[in-house]
Order: sequence, then structure tokens, then C-alpha cells
Amino acid sequence: MAGKKVLIIYAHQEPKSLNGSLKKVAVEELSKQGCTVTVSDLYAMNFEPRATRNDITGALSNPEVFRYGIETYEAYKKTALTNDILEEQRKFPLYWFSVPAILKGWMDRVLCQGFAFDIPGFYDSGFLKGKLALLSLTTGGTAEMYTKDGVSGDFRYFLWPLQHGILHFCGFKVLAPQISFGIDVSSEEEIKVMVASWAQRLKSIWKEEPIHCTPPWYFQE
Amino acid sequence: MAGKKVLIIYAHQEPKSLNGSLKKVAVEELSKQGCTVTVSDLYAMNFEPRATRNDITGALSNPEVFRYGIETYEAYKKTALTNDILEEQRKFPLYWFSVPAILKGWMDRVLCQGFAFDIPGFYDSGFLKGKLALLSLTTGGTAEMYTKDGVSGDFRYFLWPLQHGILHFCGFKVLAPQISFGIDVSSEEEIKVMVASWAQRLKSIWKEEPIHCTPPWYFQE
Repeated sequence: MAGKKVLIIYAHQEPKSLNGSLKKVAVEELSKQGCTVTVSDLYAMNFEPRATRNDITGALSNPEVFRYGIETYEAYKKTALTNDILEEQRKFPLYWFSVPAILKGWMDRVLCQGFAFDIPGFYDSGFLKGKLALLSLTTGGTAEMYTKDGVSGDFRYFLWPLQHGILHFCGFKVLAPQISFGIDVSSEEEIKVMVASWAQRLKSIWKEEPIHCTPPWYFQE
Repeated sequence: MAGKKVLIIYAHQEPKSLNGSLKKVAVEELSKQGCTVTVSDLYAMNFEPRATRNDITGALSNPEVFRYGIETYEAYKKTALTNDILEEQRKFPLYWFSVPAILKGWMDRVLCQGFAFDIPGFYDSGFLKGKLALLSLTTGGTAEMYTKDGVSGDFRYFLWPLQHGILHFCGFKVLAPQISFGIDVSSEEEIKVMVASWAQRLKSIWKEEPIHCTPPWYFQE
């Protein structure tokens, strides 16, 4: 949709991977719609996922006992967070994510700085309120393994800490996740279908309603 | 218990923190029992949480398309994983963990290399089977916030990906977690009680039965 600003957080080592293809078609489709699309390619950026004292520039408010949450909140208010965090925070809007630990690091370091604090009641950020977020993930296990009675349990279970604990907590509206299951056991043809169905979904993504991001969505439906 | 080998994975920036104290009393109590205690202090080690091509020494089996899971599995079989991973894998036994993203990185890079693959049926690792794991975590939010009807939902929800998705998946028996709630709003006296009750629990830790690490424990009890 023309005028929309989209940030894609892309976390995969290999451009020729399925995740690489999913990112590529998202950039293409959303650009074609007239969106302004920005990509943060975490591996290419060598993004730092560790939450350390280096995230704060200048003096600490308490150099005797380092408390990360307090120091980064103070630094956020003084714009004294380190540049890689500030740059990511400047990029905002619809988020599209992909895979591993480095992504959790991104979320912890970028989203949970100031945003989670600088808000009435923790859940009502002026800054992020109404912004949309969407997780796109791939799994090695099949869809069947990620059901209530499957060996890995319902896939929604593992989304809870990211979607509810971080995105919802910070004030995002969360769109339904895009999960591409069983990619290690899929044929080339099946992989193509996954990419095509994601591209298809993106054509009407702006008409989608967010999920109701509360426990019943994750544990009871 | 004399003869037991214990590895404490410690992930906190500040030795004077509650997490630092919990680690300290665990080392003291378990050593007093005659256990051999090793500590991996992830922040002090500047542990690398990113899963990259650098985790594999020597040539890749497919240099055209980098697939992390496949390459690290091949490297695992040839003992061609990078040294920091191999060193951690040499340490094993009862695990005791603490907090953030860097820890998820440790688990992804160290536990999910080979162990998750090199096993009949994925769930039955000869290497880790019967080993005990225990997560010790601290939260900013109060215990009330981490109940089924609280704003953060039951604390067991966020344990699912770590306890079931990684530890149980790799073959560990999981002991009940040690959660110290509301540490940002607790008095010094209350913090002392948290440390003391952890030390007390450790006195009889070897008599504990593992939890039944399946969905009912997390979502229904």
C-alpha cells in the first residue's frame, strides 16, 4: 500500500535459503505496492546480540553496580544508547522477522530499550502503539510435529515469548505468523509453493486484522 | 553429593547482582557437598551467541549454499566445530542457567550441535540422557503478573521453548525451575530470602524428581 513504511528484520546466514527467498519476495511485493521498504540484514550487519555495558555511551548512573535495565533506560532518555541500537530504532513500522538467537538479541536490545518503560502502564506505548508486527519463521520439523499432540507441541506455544512477551508487551499489534514448516524434508516444488503463498498473502496484508494476542490464542484454540 | 559433576552456565553482567549471588551460593553449597563444580561465566568469557559459518573449522561440505544445521552436524561428526563450542560440550552434567539472549545463543550453539541429531529418534540422546538440567531465572515482574490471569501470563508459558524445545529435546531430565520474581520491586531483605531459599533447596537437590516435561505441566496445571 502506497505510503506505508515497512522494516524487514532478516536473520539468516544464506541468501539462497528459503528465508532469503521469503525476504526477497517480500521486498519485491511490498515495493510494488508503493511501500517504503527497509531491510536490516542482521548477519550481514554482524549485528551484536549481547546486552552489555557497551550499549551505553558515556558515564553510567551507577558505576558500582551495573544494572542493564536501569542504565539503558537512563541512556534512552538521554539519547546515550550506542549507535547500532539508535539506528535500528529510527527505522520502525511493520516488522517482518526470521529465525534464530541473534533475532532474540535484536528484539531484546532494540525493542526493550526505553519503549517498554517509557509508557503508561507498560502496555500502551505512544511510540509503537498501532504499529504492526509479523513473525515469519521456518521450521525443520513438520506441521504435524508442531500440533498439540505432536512431539514439539503446538507451534503457537513457542511464539508466546516473542509475540506476547516482547511484541505485544511493547505495544505492537501482531498479525498472524507466517510459518513455513518442514523445510528440511520438503521438495523444491513444495518450497516454491511456500514462497508463492507468502507472496500471495502479502498482496492483501494491509487488510488483515491483528490476532487477539492473549493466552486463548496460544493455548486453547 | 560427592562425586557429582555440576556445570553452572552463568549469564549476567554484574557479579553484585542477585543472579551473581545465586551463582555464588550454588558454587558454595554444591562444593561443600563434594560436587565438582565448573562455571561458564558467559559475559566474562565474551561468549559468542551468533550461529555463523565461523562455528565450522575447515572446508564446508557445500560452500555454494550455507546450511548451518547440516554443516554443524557434519563438523560435529569430524570434531571440526570451533573451539569455544567444543570446550563447552566437554564440560557437561547438571546445568544451572540464568537469564538473557546470550544464554539462548549458548543453548543453540552448544546443545543443538550434534546432540539433537546424533540420536535415535531425536529424543533419546545417549550422550545427554539422564543428565539433569535446571533453569534459575529472575524476573522484573512480580509473581502475580506471571499467573494465568496476570498481564504476563503464567511463567511456565515462557519456559516452554527453553525447557521443552531445547533441554527436553536434547535428552535432559528437567528439574523444577527456580524463579526469583519481582526483583526490581523487592527489598534487600526479600532478596536475601530468595538467596537463602535457593541455598536451602540445593541441600536436597539430588533427591528431587524431574518434572513431567510435557504440555500439561506448562499449560494445564
